[in-house]
Amino acid sequence: MIFERFKSKVVSHLSYFIGSDTEALVVDPRRDCHVYINKAQLENMSIKYIFETHRNEDYVIGSLELAQLTGAEIYHCPWPDFKYGNKLKDGQEFYVGKLKVTTIHTPGHTPGCVSYAVADLASGEEAVLVCTGDALFVNDVGRSDFGGLEKRREWSENLYNSIFNKLLPLGDYVILCPAHGSGSVCGGNIAEREWSTLGLERLMNPLLQLSKEQFVEQKVNEHQEYAPYFRLMEKYNLEGAPFIGAGPKPIALSPKAFQEYVDEGALVIDIRTPIAFNNAHIKGSFNIPQERLSKAGWVIPYNEPILLIVNTKADLDYTAISLARIGYDNIIGYLGKGLSSWLKAGKPKESSGSLSVHELKEKIVAGEKLILLDVRSQDEWEKGYIAGSRRIYVGLLEKRLQEVPTRSPVVIICKSGNRSSLAASILLRDGRKNIFNLLGGITAWQNAGYKIVK
Amino acid sequence: MIFERFKSKVVSHLSYFIGSDTEALVVDPRRDCHVYINKAQLENMSIKYIFETHRNEDYVIGSLELAQLTGAEIYHCPWPDFKYGNKLKDGQEFYVGKLKVTTIHTPGHTPGCVSYAVADLASGEEAVLVCTGDALFVNDVGRSDFGGLEKRREWSENLYNSIFNKLLPLGDYVILCPAHGSGSVCGGNIAEREWSTLGLERLMNPLLQLSKEQFVEQKVNEHQEYAPYFRLMEKYNLEGAPFIGAGPKPIALSPKAFQEYVDEGALVIDIRTPIAFNNAHIKGSFNIPQERLSKAGWVIPYNEPILLIVNTKADLDYTAISLARIGYDNIIGYLGKGLSSWLKAGKPKESSGSLSVHELKEKIVAGEKLILLDVRSQDEWEKGYIAGSRRIYVGLLEKRLQEVPTRSPVVIICKSGNRSSLAASILLRDGRKNIFNLLGGITAWQNAGYKIVK
Amino acid sequence: MIFERFKSKVVSHLSYFIGSDTEALVVDPRRDCHVYINKAQLENMSIKYIFETHRNEDYVIGSLELAQLTGAEIYHCPWPDFKYGNKLKDGQEFYVGKLKVTTIHTPGHTPGCVSYAVADLASGEEAVLVCTGDALFVNDVGRSDFGGLEKRREWSENLYNSIFNKLLPLGDYVILCPAHGSGSVCGGNIAEREWSTLGLERLMNPLLQLSKEQFVEQKVNEHQEYAPYFRLMEKYNLEGAPFIGAGPKPIALSPKAFQEYVDEGALVIDIRTPIAFNNAHIKGSFNIPQERLSKAGWVIPYNEPILLIVNTKADLDYTAISLARIGYDNIIGYLGKGLSSWLKAGKPKESSGSLSVHELKEKIVAGEKLILLDVRSQDEWEKGYIAGSRRIYVGLLEKRLQEVPTRSPVVIICKSGNRSSLAASILLRDGRKNIFNLLGGITAWQNAGYKIVK
Amino acid sequence: MIFERFKSKVVSHLSYFIGSDTEALVVDPRRDCHVYINKAQLENMSIKYIFETHRNEDYVIGSLELAQLTGAEIYHCPWPDFKYGNKLKDGQEFYVGKLKVTTIHTPGHTPGCVSYAVADLASGEEAVLVCTGDALFVNDVGRSDFGGLEKRREWSENLYNSIFNKLLPLGDYVILCPAHGSGSVCGGNIAEREWSTLGLERLMNPLLQLSKEQFVEQKVNEHQEYAPYFRLMEKYNLEGAPFIGAGPKPIALSPKAFQEYVDEGALVIDIRTPIAFNNAHIKGSFNIPQERLSKAGWVIPYNEPILLIVNTKADLDYTAISLARIGYDNIIGYLGKGLSSWLKAGKPKESSGSLSVHELKEKIVAGEKLILLDVRSQDEWEKGYIAGSRRIYVGLLEKRLQEVPTRSPVVIICKSGNRSSLAASILLRDGRKNIFNLLGGITAWQNAGYKIVK
Repeated sequence: MIFERFKSKVVSHLSYFIGSDTEALVVDPRRDCHVYINKAQLENMSIKYIFETHRNEDYVIGSLELAQLTGAEIYHCPWPDFKYGNKLKDGQEFYVGKLKVTTIHTPGHTPGCVSYAVADLASGEEAVLVCTGDALFVNDVGRSDFGGLEKRREWSENLYNSIFNKLLPLGDYVILCPAHGSGSVCGGNIAEREWSTLGLERLMNPLLQLSKEQFVEQKVNEHQEYAPYFRLMEKYNLEGAPFIGAGPKPIALSPKAFQEYVDEGALVIDIRTPIAFNNAHIKGSFNIPQERLSKAGWVIPYNEPILLIVNTKADLDYTAISLARIGYDNIIGYLGKGLSSWLKAGKPKESSGSLSVHELKEKIVAGEKLILLDVRSQDEWEKGYIAGSRRIYVGLLEKRLQEVPTRSPVVIICKSGNRSSLAASILLRDGRKNIFNLLGGITAWQNAGYKIVK
Repeated sequence: MIFERFKSKVVSHLSYFIGSDTEALVVDPRRDCHVYINKAQLENMSIKYIFETHRNEDYVIGSLELAQLTGAEIYHCPWPDFKYGNKLKDGQEFYVGKLKVTTIHTPGHTPGCVSYAVADLASGEEAVLVCTGDALFVNDVGRSDFGGLEKRREWSENLYNSIFNKLLPLGDYVILCPAHGSGSVCGGNIAEREWSTLGLERLMNPLLQLSKEQFVEQKVNEHQEYAPYFRLMEKYNLEGAPFIGAGPKPIALSPKAFQEYVDEGALVIDIRTPIAFNNAHIKGSFNIPQERLSKAGWVIPYNEPILLIVNTKADLDYTAISLARIGYDNIIGYLGKGLSSWLKAGKPKESSGSLSVHELKEKIVAGEKLILLDVRSQDEWEKGYIAGSRRIYVGLLEKRLQEVPTRSPVVIICKSGNRSSLAASILLRDGRKNIFNLLGGITAWQNAGYKIVK
Repeated sequence: MIFERFKSKVVSHLSYFIGSDTEALVVDPRRDCHVYINKAQLENMSIKYIFETHRNEDYVIGSLELAQLTGAEIYHCPWPDFKYGNKLKDGQEFYVGKLKVTTIHTPGHTPGCVSYAVADLASGEEAVLVCTGDALFVNDVGRSDFGGLEKRREWSENLYNSIFNKLLPLGDYVILCPAHGSGSVCGGNIAEREWSTLGLERLMNPLLQLSKEQFVEQKVNEHQEYAPYFRLMEKYNLEGAPFIGAGPKPIALSPKAFQEYVDEGALVIDIRTPIAFNNAHIKGSFNIPQERLSKAGWVIPYNEPILLIVNTKADLDYTAISLARIGYDNIIGYLGKGLSSWLKAGKPKESSGSLSVHELKEKIVAGEKLILLDVRSQDEWEKGYIAGSRRIYVGLLEKRLQEVPTRSPVVIICKSGNRSSLAASILLRDGRKNIFNLLGGITAWQNAGYKIVK
Repeated sequence: MIFERFKSKVVSHLSYFIGSDTEALVVDPRRDCHVYINKAQLENMSIKYIFETHRNEDYVIGSLELAQLTGAEIYHCPWPDFKYGNKLKDGQEFYVGKLKVTTIHTPGHTPGCVSYAVADLASGEEAVLVCTGDALFVNDVGRSDFGGLEKRREWSENLYNSIFNKLLPLGDYVILCPAHGSGSVCGGNIAEREWSTLGLERLMNPLLQLSKEQFVEQKVNEHQEYAPYFRLMEKYNLEGAPFIGAGPKPIALSPKAFQEYVDEGALVIDIRTPIAFNNAHIKGSFNIPQERLSKAGWVIPYNEPILLIVNTKADLDYTAISLARIGYDNIIGYLGKGLSSWLKAGKPKESSGSLSVHELKEKIVAGEKLILLDVRSQDEWEKGYIAGSRRIYVGLLEKRLQEVPTRSPVVIICKSGNRSSLAASILLRDGRKNIFNLLGGITAWQNAGYKIVK
């Protein structure tokens, strides 16, 4: 049995290539699907099946393009009514080389969620691993809020049942293969560790230590954001997204050409670090630092041309493919040689401020009038914040700009300084002045020994 | 000025990326054109122009796909009447960053051949390099036989005039950038050295030492082969070939699946070395050793499914893209884990014989009855052959099989043992027995101190 | 927690990089240890500890060079008396970022074997994985024969106790990280699947289904080979091997230069496939096909200069580093452009025969006089062989040459045709004629439907 | 003939691998010399000779380590008295495959400078290319100031004679292969274009348009800097530098460990862009932006431990090897995850200011008191500067700190904003406040349409 996990950083998506003898299967392929074909060629295997765990909402699935390139068959659950692929039955079995794959209906995250237990018949009938999609993660479980308020309790109960009655009974010894790792919006407490087993989760996953009532109560009361870009993902993943072939190929633009596109209304995504962005950037650009690229889904529309500001070719490649993975096919180019070419061309820069936590502390102690704007999620906020802050989630800021007073300097705060820089760029786009990004965020604040309140 | 030469080994095709400041041009792009886009991104340049030196006949040009991906404009000569791109005028000038490109009509190889002289205005007006297409190579000149017998003299004269009246006058100091390197069918005596200048050619190129009369006489009397696949290339390059996106992705096949395709009539190309092929191969397969892949154009039809036998993933990638470069889009798969998987599956092998030059010599000395079949080109043959051989060019052997007697063992001879192994496989496909490949070919024969006759 | 498994194919050696926050540990590093440093740099971690599971005997461990490059501390068990590093105590605990590593003395394979259980304190106290060295593999257990006949029962009992009383009690849910994968001489039945858990082994590992008595009996009666090269490995791993820096850099040799080294007594290792080797090779060379490079340890002395025959640069790199991993630092060069350059230079070839299983069957049916020589291990032999064969293990053949009769053709048989080709080359070196390699080996024989006897 | 140019960006050093048949030569190898061995293996060639053009002063030459790894012979001129290698005679000839290499004594840059003319005997006796070391560059000629004031005229005359009487007579058609490209301190006006011929230089190189008198006058009056690190390079290149094997392997450090080293006196090199550095950096660090790494040779001593601040693994690799190429073997580590980890750890930042050219213009127009400090070289300065500036070369600033007034804000100016940021960091290290870096430098100033004076 060959096993490889592929991680797509932008949404912390995990997909799997599993093979035996001359055959292989892929679970939840990403949109740029040549990696699986390369792996299949390296292993001298042909991809026989593509299994989807559910209609994903946070990234574009690559099943259809992969199937077209390989002749593999796609399978997913009857819910929702997919426009491509084959419908599964609960308990349906598939054979891939010496592997036996058993379908397990594990609703909760959505009604159509499926897990796939894989046994290696070369050793025996026991399941070696299980691909659980968004049902069970390392240290967390899937969201149950996509059905809306009225279905939340029912879906949470389903999730509990799926985990406790369908997954855990497979055995402590089964290796867990979830669809997301740490950093995903699909589970805020997913562990950084990507390796686990059902037994380890049974013993250590905080949610699996709860009674059914406690579990459901906690899930019903979670606060999670629904990014507006999810809607396109859902449509793409229901119907099949446009193929991307060799992937996006943004074109280098001179400062002059770049300026012309900006003047015509193209949106600028600047993926540099907040430290650099705060000091000098092109007026009107969004700062979406590389580590937080998925936040594009909150602020960047799909029908506008996009321009990029990056540092290196590696950044460019990463950014272009990451945006493609969340459906952005409208990148037209990037600023050749980055922002320094802009400055060397004699073009103007805009700056915002940035503060270290010590500088902020001094200002607070000195009694300076400041608006402290925390842009983290509600769940993060509830774990503690800097006294005197107010909260607007970064993804909602553009629509709630009027709630941010203009009378005093604004200091923006998030966990480590990335989302706050996006928030700063949103305020700057509104023409605000005196905007400061807190470098290092609340993490730095606490590491410096300053207090938070709850 | 940025300059990079790209070599496509299969037909020894040379293409060029030349850039300055934020702009670049590409001359004669290959079909898998992402290399130029990557280079442009690395250099932070946008490709502004794609220049074709002529309607190529030995590989598929990638201009149209490259233009579609980059927005570059394509230019070529008015002859023939291309279905895409823009028509040039002789002497037309283009500016790319600080470069000035001047079009020079250099007919001879075809009536529509164009050269492009590039000056770097940052230094001055002198041409730094010239892209000569198939007019002038290092140590050789282009073919003048594509117009047929009746036009050969005229085209040869044109070629002489183009070289002596258009190219050499640019100056001894101009760097030569031809469209082909050593190993191309477009010039049998191209030097292995890829770097030269007009002055070096003026002084050392054997054909440029001749008078006009001698030059034309020599060109008119050359013998060159016209591979049947050229016809498709010409059509593709006139109209624009199908796009290949991320390139071909052959699928690994188990021995069983491979056998089924073979039984249905798929053609097998085995790219292993003759040493391996001769000892064990699948009955019916063609041996087209990796170094001689372009010979596929003589024997493999475009409308049949193709299967590959390769040793490694690197071989697979090279073979698949090389065949795509000469228009083969019908590769369906390859034998996973190579021929050893076939043998381990208990399937039968076929063998042919192979001889070292010493073994052949012994047999000749011993008076064994042998048919010595030389499969090289007429020009190679005229430089010397093993006494007693007869000649049929490898590319024509399939049609002239009846000329090869069956009464005695056949020893096949070429320059180094690769084309002879293809010829051996063609005879084996005809059901012949007692076929021997001369390992190392006539090169080995001479290095061993044995005599040739002329 | 970051986790990466590194596989060194030559001896199927598995090593592990495990990190957390800014720190990492490496278990059983391979000799060319830069991979761990690169990984550490990618993860922005510093390697704090190097843990050895035991004094390895089948490859050169890279602990000392890795420690010198990184400042990491080396730990191993008090047995044997290592000349470098620190001595462990049973139960000793280490902290690496948020990880807790607990030492478990698990003797049996050797008295000094140690396992390392790793807990991720970010989630809880349960062990997430355990590095078991040569105590427990996927589907197999370690050898217990290195103490010699008199200690074999005791060591087997120790192994049983280590597995059942020390490892399995850690919990079914613990991920298994052994020191070897499929293909290792340290366990003949290791599964191809590299992922398992203690629970899966408890349920499916054939040896763990036995009673203690049965287990010990089986281990005591196993037949395993002790390769002569183990002795150097043991010395190196006790004292620390010479450093290899950037690794071996064999030099390309012309046929002439190659010949000169051969004439001076250098040994030739030809790593091509048996199919190619059998047809043409340099007289006197050993055929050690790439998949079976570790067999060099049986036949190639450490004090002689070595020459290589390879097909490609990738082969060269793989062969050179693989030989370095088993202690060969005496490679002086390789034949540039491979065997075809030898043949083109007009130099002589030697051939041996090769047979498909069908050809062998026909000869047997026809009553041809043949000596069938099976060169597999005793354990493989006992599972079945071709009627009429006799057995000499490939590694012992050179010393037992006189046992192979010379009166009839010899057909050599192994599992799939690789070791038999090495055996053929050994017989050829002895001047034998009429040596045939069975292509595809007994695997092909059985797949073709022919019978074996036991 | 195989030809490959290798560029080491840090000092714009060009080296050459040239081969034919089975042999090759290397001219002026860089310190990390495995690239040549890899190339030799790819081409199946053995490196027979290593030729040095002169005792280099701006980088560490890798001849000795390369010779040790390959067995190649090293050759250089009798001056100075090298402690390794063989002494050349003027006109000495070497044969490498079908190449003939002729030594030409071309003094001027130093008395011992040698050029190597390479003919490809496969085509004829004409020189195809000439490696000119620091005698002749594309668009410029070598420095003649290393002999001190008293020898400058004589060396300049020698240089003129070498170019006009030794090199140009080789023929217009000879390809020029100099030792440096654009960006080298060895020639301030070297063209960006790396390809040229002797004829192109004869016609377009500004210095070759002068009479001998004019040439010598211009060379005698040039102003060029002598970096203090040259002294170590000279020593290393005379005696042979320490070997670097697989190259430097800096270790990731946590903020805490990094701080400890800083506290113990380690020097911090921060290679990020000025935009980022100006906004936030660790107090006491030098900003040596990646494009200007060779400036380390002015300010970083060789006997102090060095710490790095980089953004990515690619940056780290580039920086570490680039510093090794100019002799820095004392890098102990780098800040893991870069400056953001420092900030997240709650550690303090220091900032300096940065201004766009428009912001500077406004301040000047508004009559703000500013000290304009230009840190370019004298030759750059003489081409024009911002009115009111004074000049101290960046490399000398540390020793001339007292010349920079403290009463007003200081705006530092260079060509494009990199060296000025290094200068800013030097002033900050001195405890200065109100230091501003002019982003985009005088290039931006001019592109914005603002005036300069001369």
